[in-house]
This record gives sequence, structure tokens and C-alpha cells, in this order.
Amino acid sequence: MARIVKKFGGTSVGDMERMRRAALRVKRAHEAGDEVAVVVSAMAGETNRLIALCQEASPLHDAREYDTVVASGEQVSAGLFAILLQSMGVPARSWTGWQVPVRTSDRHGAALIEEIDTRRLEERLARREVPVMTGFQGVGPDRRVTTLGRGGSDTSAVALAAALHAERCDIYTDVDGVFTTDPRIVAKARKLERITYEEMLEMASLGAKVLQIRSVALAMTHGVRVQVRSSFNEVSGTLLVNEDEIVEQELVTGLAYSKADAVITLYGVPDRPGRAAAVFGPLAEAGIIVDMIVQSTTPADGHAEITFTVPAEELGRALDALEGAREKIGFARLESNSDVVKISVIGIGMRSHAGVANTMFATLAEKGVPILAISTSEIKVSVLIDAAYTELALRALHSAYGLDAA
Amino acid sequence: MARIVKKFGGTSVGDMERMRRAALRVKRAHEAGDEVAVVVSAMAGETNRLIALCQEASPLHDAREYDTVVASGEQVSAGLFAILLQSMGVPARSWTGWQVPVRTSDRHGAALIEEIDTRRLEERLARREVPVMTGFQGVGPDRRVTTLGRGGSDTSAVALAAALHAERCDIYTDVDGVFTTDPRIVAKARKLERITYEEMLEMASLGAKVLQIRSVALAMTHGVRVQVRSSFNEVSGTLLVNEDEIVEQELVTGLAYSKADAVITLYGVPDRPGRAAAVFGPLAEAGIIVDMIVQSTTPADGHAEITFTVPAEELGRALDALEGAREKIGFARLESNSDVVKISVIGIGMRSHAGVANTMFATLAEKGVPILAISTSEIKVSVLIDAAYTELALRALHSAYGLDAA
Repeated sequence: MARIVKKFGGTSVGDMERMRRAALRVKRAHEAGDEVAVVVSAMAGETNRLIALCQEASPLHDAREYDTVVASGEQVSAGLFAILLQSMGVPARSWTGWQVPVRTSDRHGAALIEEIDTRRLEERLARREVPVMTGFQGVGPDRRVTTLGRGGSDTSAVALAAALHAERCDIYTDVDGVFTTDPRIVAKARKLERITYEEMLEMASLGAKVLQIRSVALAMTHGVRVQVRSSFNEVSGTLLVNEDEIVEQELVTGLAYSKADAVITLYGVPDRPGRAAAVFGPLAEAGIIVDMIVQSTTPADGHAEITFTVPAEELGRALDALEGAREKIGFARLESNSDVVKISVIGIGMRSHAGVANTMFATLAEKGVPILAISTSEIKVSVLIDAAYTELALRALHSAYGLDAA
Repeated sequence: MARIVKKFGGTSVGDMERMRRAALRVKRAHEAGDEVAVVVSAMAGETNRLIALCQEASPLHDAREYDTVVASGEQVSAGLFAILLQSMGVPARSWTGWQVPVRTSDRHGAALIEEIDTRRLEERLARREVPVMTGFQGVGPDRRVTTLGRGGSDTSAVALAAALHAERCDIYTDVDGVFTTDPRIVAKARKLERITYEEMLEMASLGAKVLQIRSVALAMTHGVRVQVRSSFNEVSGTLLVNEDEIVEQELVTGLAYSKADAVITLYGVPDRPGRAAAVFGPLAEAGIIVDMIVQSTTPADGHAEITFTVPAEELGRALDALEGAREKIGFARLESNSDVVKISVIGIGMRSHAGVANTMFATLAEKGVPILAISTSEIKVSVLIDAAYTELALRALHSAYGLDAA
């Protein structure tokens, strides 16, 4: 007998037939003797519909009211899921965030889970009832409904698994697991049987959308074994594990890509003390996070180029901030481009093996792909390239690192 | 300055534009210095959508889960309504049933309000904030969401008005008020400026759908002044008042009609002691309420006819119960008809004036309308007739009692 939290995302509960199939999975585990707690998202499309209603009511709306409106989606799913389980003979009941309660901070729309009080759920589990908890939400210190931000149901599930000391947290989604890279772009992408928390964290941060970053960080912190798997088939999925559980360590585990960045280049920046502060100060003040930075070696005339990336959705604000500080920085000219992609090679094997970055640069050079910027960390190397090269670069790198499916 | 509860029904908050107009009404009252508390229904169609989802999940579903699912509709309306008020500069916040709290019995799907704890709302009203409360729902003794049954938002509004000692409860709907009879059938129907609680109770019980019966009973018990008015125009509506507030008492106030009944006739029932018990016992056991009863005078052969009405939706079950008791009752033959209408004449003036029933019978006889059954109470007379005569009978009676608009 194992205690397992099963989380079903929006597509997995997208209509009654899919919800029924999800409930059947829970029934099977329950009948096999497992103690199961369920976490559900809103039915696919529902959260967007509710957000649109809030926007229609007022573009600038009270986040507390937004939370009240949007949280209703999971309440509906949880009630329906409990009805389905009961109709299959499985004792079940729905639990909203305030009923459990899932106590959160008061940062409405992006609240943090502070504590899940599991006393009531433990009582129900002890009598073999299946609790069906609303994902994505909790209750704030002022007894108001809070939500955790988009994708927050993953975080709810992992937090519940940690609080219940569950043996595993199964995240059911619309893909078979975590892949070496996006199978829609690289046909030879392979599903990973296992991946370490750290690698998954990098993959999620760098563009893989299969799990919400916060949920991975939470799983790593609390040592929750997370399994990502499809709700549409019986394929085994991908297990998130500690480094010591990986038997045969590959050099590179996966490739991620993200089109969420834009690149800005300042030309003719005078070489004087405090130059970097003059450029990045105004951006920091505007709350814009700068990622990759390349500074050209200063040429003879005492002027340099500075290239860096910002989130694409904040490009306009970044340019405004830079233009506003033009005199202070003293740059001659500015160029920007949001048609770029950041490609990242990720693997904890990099720690002990040199040459991973070199393979990347050599492979891209061979294919004639210019590298606009580079950034590295302990377990990843990222390059910024023109978006037109996305597919070419991903396929070439996937082969170069020996990731292709046989 | 007056304290007023304003309740907006499903059509009054049916889309964002209508909800905005409703919020504007609240804003005007607020700016005029009134203390306003709002009660909202789910957006038109939403409750039906949610009920259908529960049905789809399982025709026999846990009423507690049904309540969890269905109550989400008002939660959405309340949040959106608060956003709209805020966008107009009116301080406002939404309150769900459990947040207020509105404490109810645990009869899920048809819960009774036991207490509305108004402390938190009073605090907000004192600082001129507008509370926007979800209608139709509360929280049960087990901290689960309860709903009050269809149309329950009227009851929520009246109960809130009573608990807050409000001067008036405005019920905004899609008609101009309470009419002498259904204006879709009788073009000369007049809107009533005032109607007594008792008359309204009879009107609602006998088919007028403008207010939920329970809300009228509650208003009568607590002396809440209820105004029924349209949310689509500035017409003054109908005020529910005590009898002593009616200055010029009409003999008859209005005509109601209902097609919710079916009639059953048993022929050849032997005249022996306990005959009535033999007929109505099995129906009572099946939980079927019998309304109008006519027993023919026993003819020479010792056999009689018994005619009575049951709710049309329970006709099948009633016939089963009677067939099951056929030997015990000993009837020869059974006929039923659900194509009938119950037409009722209502007015507290009847108490002091004879002849109201007579006018009814004479008018119908003159038009050649056969009466199948009759029942009377202190302030109403009802007749059962063939449904085909509905329009003819209503028009003739409306004229006969002098109700026609000038």
C-alpha cells in the first residue's frame, strides 16, 4: 500500500469523458489498496474564460476579486470529480482550498502556500475516502480566496504530497512525460525515464512547459518523488529523482528552447567607470530582469558594444528605460530584435565532463548558425541564436549529444 | 439615508453590459447616501450549465458535491460585480456564503438559512463599503457549501435585509413588477403598485413566478418591505406591504394560473368506511401531495367517483401507487389528464365580501367553460379547467373582476 497524490491538469479533465477516465485511474489505484488523494485543475479553457470575464469587467481589477472569480473553475472540477468517483463506488469528497485549509500568503493572484493543514484529510484517508482537492488555490490570512498563479495546480499537488508524506506525486498531463527535447520539433526526441530535480528545474526555466517551475523547486526541497505521465495512455512517464538515483549518467539529459527573450545591442558606449551600472541601473529600476550579457572588448576609440537579453514582453519598456537614460549612458545607437531563440543544453553530467559547451559551439558553427550570446551555469549552457535556426540547431545538437532515439 | 438590500437576478446580470447597468444603479444609490448591500444570482444560464454537468457526471449525485459545483456560479457573479463597482469608484467587495457566513441547515440542495452573521458586513457598511453577497448559498454545520434550491437568491436577499434591519429589499428582475395576471396572456393586465404579503404568497404558490415563495414567507414573517422592479427601466415596481398599508382595498387583487397539476378520476369506488384513506394512503406513502379533491355524492348502487389533482410531474408515480392498491380501493376504472390548468382568483378583500366565488363560476359558465374541480381558502378561489380554456378564462375573469387597465 502506497500513499499517492494524483494531479490531473486541465486537458485531463477537459470534458466529462476525460474526467471519467481520470477517475477510473484513481479507482484502480484505490482498489489496489493505495491511499489516493486527488488534485484537480479547472476544465481546459475554463480559467481563460473566467480571466476574460474579469478583464471585461475592468482591465485594472482587484486581485482579490479576480481570485474569487477564477478559483471557481477548480471548485467545479473537484465537485464533478468526486461525483464521478462516487458513481464508481469509490468513497470521495471535494475539498476547496479554504476547507482543507491550504493557507497561503496574501499575495493575491500569485500567492505562496504557507501551510497545508492535513488533519481533516488524514482522517478521511484513514477511512479509505479519496479527498479531491482544488488545485491552484488556497485561503489568505484575511479568509479570502487566493490563487497561486498560472500552472499553480502542479504546486498544489506537490505541496499536498509533501504535507501528506506521500510516496509519490503523479502529475497527469497531455504528454507522455519529459522528453530530451520538444518532440514536435525533433522527431527523434526520446522520453526520459528519469530526470534529476535540478535538470528538470533548468528544463522548466528554459522553456520546457511540462511542469511549473515552482512545483519542481518545491519537490526538490521536500524530496517529493514526482512522476509526470500522460492521462491518455498507460506509458510509464518520467520520474523526478535525486542525483544518486540516476544509475547511468548521460553527459547531456535534454535540450530546452525558449522564444521568450528579446536581444538589445547598444553601440558606441563610451568606456568609462560605471558604464555597466549606467546601462543596467535604469532597467533594474523598471523591474526588468536582464539575462545574457555580452560586452565587446573595447576597441581603440574607447567605445564598446553591449548586448543583452530581456523578456520579450518587456522589450518596449526596456527600450523606453534605455532611451530615457541615453545621455547618461552615452550610447550612439541601439538595436533590438525579438525574433531570437535561446537554446539550452542541460545535464548534471557537465559537472564532471568538460567539452559540453565546445560540442555545442562546434556543432552550430558547422551548420553555419551564428551565436549572438552565450550564458552558462553549472549544469547548462545556453546560446542565443536567430529564431529561424531553431529547428536546425535543435536537431543538430540532439544528434551531436547522442540523444536521438534508436 | 436608508439601508437597502438590492438583489439582481440571473437576467439582470446575464452579461457584462447588464451587470454594468445593475452596478450603476448601486452606484447611484450609494452616492445618494444610501447604505447598500447587494445580493447576486449566477449569470443567466450558468446554473443550468452547472446542473447539467452534475447530471452528466452521474444522474444520482451527492447533493453536497452538487452544491459545491452549482454554488460557483454566484461566486463568479459576486466577484465580477465587485470589480465593476470598484471600477466606478464605489468601494466594494464580494462575500461568499461561507465568508459572511450565512449559516444554513445541512439539507443540501434545499438548505434553510438559520442565521446570517452580519458583524463583518456591518463593519464594512459602516465605512461605506458595498458588500456584494452571493445569493442562493450558505455554509452548513459541517463547513460544506450548501444551496437553497432554485430561486433561492430571493430568499438570500430577504434574509439579509432582515438580518441587517434594512429599510427595503429591492428585487430586480426582468419584469416591471407584480401584475394582476400574466400580461403575456391578458394584454389588459395592470402592474400593481402594492400587494399584501399574503396575496403575494398565494400568487407565488399558484403560479406567478416573479418571486420565490419562501422569500415572500420570510418577508412576511420578518416584516421586510420588498420591492419587485425591473432592472431594465426606471418604472417604480410593486411594493409588498402589510394589509393595513393598502388604502383602497380591491375585492380581487390578481389572477394566477398554473399548469403544474394533473387530474385523476377513479370510477366505481365502493362506498365503505375508510374509502378516502384507502385512496389517499398509498399516495401519501409515496410522498405525493394531493391538492383539489371532489367526491361525487354516492349514487344508488353504492359506488362513487373520486376526482383529485396531483403535481403533473408525479402523475406516473401516482398512477403506479393507485394501480398497486387497486384491490384494496376496489375502483372499477381510472382516468387521468395532465392537460389541465388551475386558475385562481386572489384577494384579501374576499374576507369581507361574499360573491367572489360566485362571480367566478357565473363568468366561466357564461363562456361555456366546464369546471373540473374547485378549492377555496380564506383569500383565494381556485378552479381546475381544461388547459385549452386558459386564455379565454383568464381574460373573462380579469374583466369580470374589474381588473382591466383603463
